[in-house]
Amino acid sequence: MVGRPKLREERLDVPTIVDAALNIARKSLADLTMRSLSDELNVSVGALYKHVSGRDEVLALVVERVLEQAPRIDPDSGDGWLALRAQVLGVQDLMDRYPGLDDVVIAHSPKSPTANRMRREGIAALQREGLTVAQAHKVYRAVTWLWLGSRAALAGRPRRKADIDTFAEALDILIDGLRRQVGASELAVTSEEGSR
Amino acid sequence: MVGRPKLREERLDVPTIVDAALNIARKSLADLTMRSLSDELNVSVGALYKHVSGRDEVLALVVERVLEQAPRIDPDSGDGWLALRAQVLGVQDLMDRYPGLDDVVIAHSPKSPTANRMRREGIAALQREGLTVAQAHKVYRAVTWLWLGSRAALAGRPRRKADIDTFAEALDILIDGLRRQVGASELAVTSEEGSR
Repeated sequence: MVGRPKLREERLDVPTIVDAALNIARKSLADLTMRSLSDELNVSVGALYKHVSGRDEVLALVVERVLEQAPRIDPDSGDGWLALRAQVLGVQDLMDRYPGLDDVVIAHSPKSPTANRMRREGIAALQREGLTVAQAHKVYRAVTWLWLGSRAALAGRPRRKADIDTFAEALDILIDGLRRQVGASELAVTSEEGSR
Repeated sequence: MVGRPKLREERLDVPTIVDAALNIARKSLADLTMRSLSDELNVSVGALYKHVSGRDEVLALVVERVLEQAPRIDPDSGDGWLALRAQVLGVQDLMDRYPGLDDVVIAHSPKSPTANRMRREGIAALQREGLTVAQAHKVYRAVTWLWLGSRAALAGRPRRKADIDTFAEALDILIDGLRRQVGASELAVTSEEGSR
């Protein structure tokens, strides 16, 4: 097949490139190169570069594609704390479906538009529970650290039952404790106001 | 200076190489290459390869050098839970001294001998508090995730006051909650035994 001209009948576009990249990356991130991607799509490497600037952009797009599948927080949903808990557990389940993508999601999530949208939704849900912006950010930060760390610790291996159980328990402890702490600080503010 | 022969008077050894690597890496990890390292040490790249297998080994050795500076857990210390708390806060302070090394420490810590020694010491401290091996591993896992995630979220920037405060609060909530949970499960076992 050496020298066979690369010919693709269908039109190449970014969503098609991201589909192919995710197909390669879900098996092995190391296998995802501009060359392997061009082979998968049956196009020249040059044709790829007309749509994306390089492997880094492809990786960023793959992260968006994965995170877009995370469950949304319904603004009309009841308890904002439970909505946050569901969001985090949903992301964990989602990540479990893409073994090998932990590192790239961790690296990209601070600047990912989809991760930022999820953050805004999570913080809004907490504000609906009466938290100040600062309190909501604090809670979101702590909870995010727990899931980011739980993925970083895997170093590419799949989650085991002990990981899944510990995460669910630690998440509940953290959310309950933060909720109690926020409640106590509100109480403190109220009693300060009352004593004036 | 082109073509100047690289001559080093002192004997080259691995600790010297790691010193030089840490010097470069603490400023910018991207600047640490086998070439920049050979320049810093005033030796040829070939001379370096007689002591280390390449950049990956150098990075692993840098991580060991950093983590070795973390505070040890004194086996005779009082409260094992507080000892674990002190270990984690000590690692955070340590990491703050090496901006830019978060990613490489996160990547190497699952297989780092020093990180594993710290884990053994932390788990032993918890076992002295009456935890089973499984309980101690669970607690250590959850606490490790929180600090790993707090570093991963930085994406290379230094910690701000909000990061430091949130971490200390979240760590205390997690440790208190896990401690209460372990206490409750012991109570459950005792009352089960009592009811037989």
